[in-house]
Amino acid sequence: MRLIKEISQMKDCRKKIKAPQTVGLVPTMGAFHEGHLSLIRKARQQCDKVVVSIFVNRIQFGKGDDYQRYPRNLSEDISLSEKEGVDVVFAPSLEEMYPQDYSTFVQVGGPLSSTLEGASRSGHFKGVATVLIKLFNIVKPDFSYFGEKDYQQVLIVKKVVDELNLDTQIIVLPTIREKDGLALSSRNSYLNKEERKAAVILYKALEKAKLWIEEGERNPFSIVSKIKDLIKKESLAKLDYVAVVNPETLEKVEDIKGEVLALLAVSIGKARLIDNLLLIAGRSYLEKKEKKFSIERSIKKCE
Amino acid sequence: MRLIKEISQMKDCRKKIKAPQTVGLVPTMGAFHEGHLSLIRKARQQCDKVVVSIFVNRIQFGKGDDYQRYPRNLSEDISLSEKEGVDVVFAPSLEEMYPQDYSTFVQVGGPLSSTLEGASRSGHFKGVATVLIKLFNIVKPDFSYFGEKDYQQVLIVKKVVDELNLDTQIIVLPTIREKDGLALSSRNSYLNKEERKAAVILYKALEKAKLWIEEGERNPFSIVSKIKDLIKKESLAKLDYVAVVNPETLEKVEDIKGEVLALLAVSIGKARLIDNLLLIAGRSYLEKKEKKFSIERSIKKCE
Repeated sequence: MRLIKEISQMKDCRKKIKAPQTVGLVPTMGAFHEGHLSLIRKARQQCDKVVVSIFVNRIQFGKGDDYQRYPRNLSEDISLSEKEGVDVVFAPSLEEMYPQDYSTFVQVGGPLSSTLEGASRSGHFKGVATVLIKLFNIVKPDFSYFGEKDYQQVLIVKKVVDELNLDTQIIVLPTIREKDGLALSSRNSYLNKEERKAAVILYKALEKAKLWIEEGERNPFSIVSKIKDLIKKESLAKLDYVAVVNPETLEKVEDIKGEVLALLAVSIGKARLIDNLLLIAGRSYLEKKEKKFSIERSIKKCE
Repeated sequence: MRLIKEISQMKDCRKKIKAPQTVGLVPTMGAFHEGHLSLIRKARQQCDKVVVSIFVNRIQFGKGDDYQRYPRNLSEDISLSEKEGVDVVFAPSLEEMYPQDYSTFVQVGGPLSSTLEGASRSGHFKGVATVLIKLFNIVKPDFSYFGEKDYQQVLIVKKVVDELNLDTQIIVLPTIREKDGLALSSRNSYLNKEERKAAVILYKALEKAKLWIEEGERNPFSIVSKIKDLIKKESLAKLDYVAVVNPETLEKVEDIKGEVLALLAVSIGKARLIDNLLLIAGRSYLEKKEKKFSIERSIKKCE
């Protein structure tokens, strides 16, 4: 396995891989958990060469966000990558990616980027879109792997790739969860024992929403209101947003028909956590296997 | 020669050209003049395959700009391309490039894009950067050809290509001029006979600035002021801006040392015309052959 820190070296390395050999990219901010590993394993299955990028992308963090304390664990990430058969870890420095006077940004307008995370974290998706376009241009992956936990990010990345006419195919894998349902996130490491217990409230709320819909609830406002009440009862949790939306446009739905997506963001201690679940009116979520953009989207429990 | 109108076809065509064969792209808005042809000829000399794109890029025109009346001459452009040995003319429709709900844009911040044309034409460079990134992603050119008349555009394109880590090399060729010095532009076709005569004032002003510097003038404010007076005397001309700047940063210079760039924008009738000239304190412009980013930058008269 090669560890590459410079863009020019990564480009040189990429040039030597010629079609029909394929390259898979797993873009990460490091501090690997089973979610990252599931992406790496899928890339390893599907592609001839696997590149994992590790870069804590400063420009997607806002003022007051957790850029400084975001967990960093490069040596451990490198050994995990090696164990998974990764070919290249690309870990550029901040200066390498954003030299002095850097000022080119990719921005997605429209409701997709201004709602939910976009409303709560100004400039976040601009930072995400910009770093990904840079990584796509450097690594030129045939396939790029993302986790469904960052659902809105996935929709935006797909839109940017499509609209800027890039060639990489976006592969989306299901959220990996702890046994109690908490979605894996590098930010879970911020939680103390008590907060960790409380954090299950995100998944519990989503499961409840699923249950209510299975029981016949068709009013999204009622679901949102009941989730708000649920979160309020957890004294360590502070709700940022909860929404029931169209899974393709993220626009709020007026009534629940077919598939809807429930998303929420909740702060617990120093961690701002997000989660989401696809809900299907009329049948249980697990029965629906064919999904818009997932290879697999069934809920997997982390072993 | 192939005429391609669809992005997917252009991508398929590009895939069949394999390294070490090289591809040159001449991105144009059509209505060819000798300036365009000089770019095409250079691409033809340097590259195995030459792609000329013809697309009047609506999103780089502001409200009140000349998008509707911008000259279009596709059949003539195609036959000129054929004559010059072009391999592919890529002429996508507006809907092909910007389908409904299109909302991804590339934006360059900083002084480079907010000054001069950026100040006069809000959103112009965002439109330029966006269409070029799309064209670069579709055509994947090894070399891309631009004219020095759009000096600020060239600097911005180079910055975007560099900062988004694209691979195309930007080749800049000198402004082609009429015998009296008027820079060739598709917009010159807007001028009636009298306006055409008056339009030479742009080049005359730049030549005067060159002369004043050769005679020892070192105060840029004095040069700007004298150019303003000169343009005022031409009753058909309305000055938008004139500036003496650092040729790399486009920042206004306080005094004239080494190389400076004079740029101006002037409206004459329905045409808004721009021009620029590199000026060198201490020696004549023509004596300086090695330039920052030109292969050749000597002033050529259109035969």
